[in-house]
Amino acid sequence: MKKKLLSLAKAYQLLEPGPVVLVTTSRNGKANIMTMTWQTMIDFNPPIIGCVMSDQNYSFNILRETQECVLNIPSVLLIDTVVGVGNTTGAKIDKFSRFGLTQIPSTCVNVPRIGECFAHIECKVIDMSMAATYNMFVLQGCKAWITESKRRQRTLHHCGNGVFVVDGEVIHTDSKKK
Amino acid sequence: MKKKLLSLAKAYQLLEPGPVVLVTTSRNGKANIMTMTWQTMIDFNPPIIGCVMSDQNYSFNILRETQECVLNIPSVLLIDTVVGVGNTTGAKIDKFSRFGLTQIPSTCVNVPRIGECFAHIECKVIDMSMAATYNMFVLQGCKAWITESKRRQRTLHHCGNGVFVVDGEVIHTDSKKK
Repeated sequence: MKKKLLSLAKAYQLLEPGPVVLVTTSRNGKANIMTMTWQTMIDFNPPIIGCVMSDQNYSFNILRETQECVLNIPSVLLIDTVVGVGNTTGAKIDKFSRFGLTQIPSTCVNVPRIGECFAHIECKVIDMSMAATYNMFVLQGCKAWITESKRRQRTLHHCGNGVFVVDGEVIHTDSKKK
Repeated sequence: MKKKLLSLAKAYQLLEPGPVVLVTTSRNGKANIMTMTWQTMIDFNPPIIGCVMSDQNYSFNILRETQECVLNIPSVLLIDTVVGVGNTTGAKIDKFSRFGLTQIPSTCVNVPRIGECFAHIECKVIDMSMAATYNMFVLQGCKAWITESKRRQRTLHHCGNGVFVVDGEVIHTDSKKK
């Protein structure tokens, strides 16, 4: 899937609707992936993101040590990957290999993007002060990408216990707010 | 719309999918409402929530002073209310009156719930340490409610610039993760 650069000022539009995200990290040349659903935008431009991951996750310590990750946005077509990645640990398997995913180099972090995802935000950790209390990392996006395809990409939203809701109808309103 | 108590352990299921939320606050007996889309779960039980609102919002100082709010979840049926509430300020109008909404008393906070919303989480602010830097309040849910209706409630997700996507297809998987 060919990607083009997305303005950092528009990166919030990827996360504000609340999609499931696949987070990539890398340490000593070994890349890992985790499924994440607890994140929020904090500011628009540069995009600041707060993300929460259990300190029991293999990715937690990698992110703490390397201070870099990529937020990859999967469409509904990747639901089996989303569930498979969420049910396994990078401590035991190579998830790129297990789930047949393609590593694409990033440009501002030393972490691969997932080729099969339709959008990416390359991120650096800028604040760890909430990591000990809340397992929250504050990230700043340094580069964003989106597919060149004009087809609408429907994302997944996790409702708990393995139940997902997929994007449905789109409604355009005359809201004055960003 | 009749509501029943929802276990606090299940409150995360209301927010994890990333819906638009209507936040109620109250000061000196005057209630206000704002539309919010930047929030994330931080912990399951008790439910801890991180929410970000602009310090330009009328509700920001009320929440800072009173330390209480209710997160009300609107279904797609309330889209005009969601947009109207987002485009106006409580500094100038009474939003309950303007948008014909019903105040329902809460039980653990001194802030009304919005009767027309299908679910609510009554919350107290437990941490303001990120309020100055990131406009983030950390909330703890003290009571949760959900409609008694068995009908599926489709929520709204904001994609930016007044574009919303509505819940579509539901997919049940065998994910082992909460």
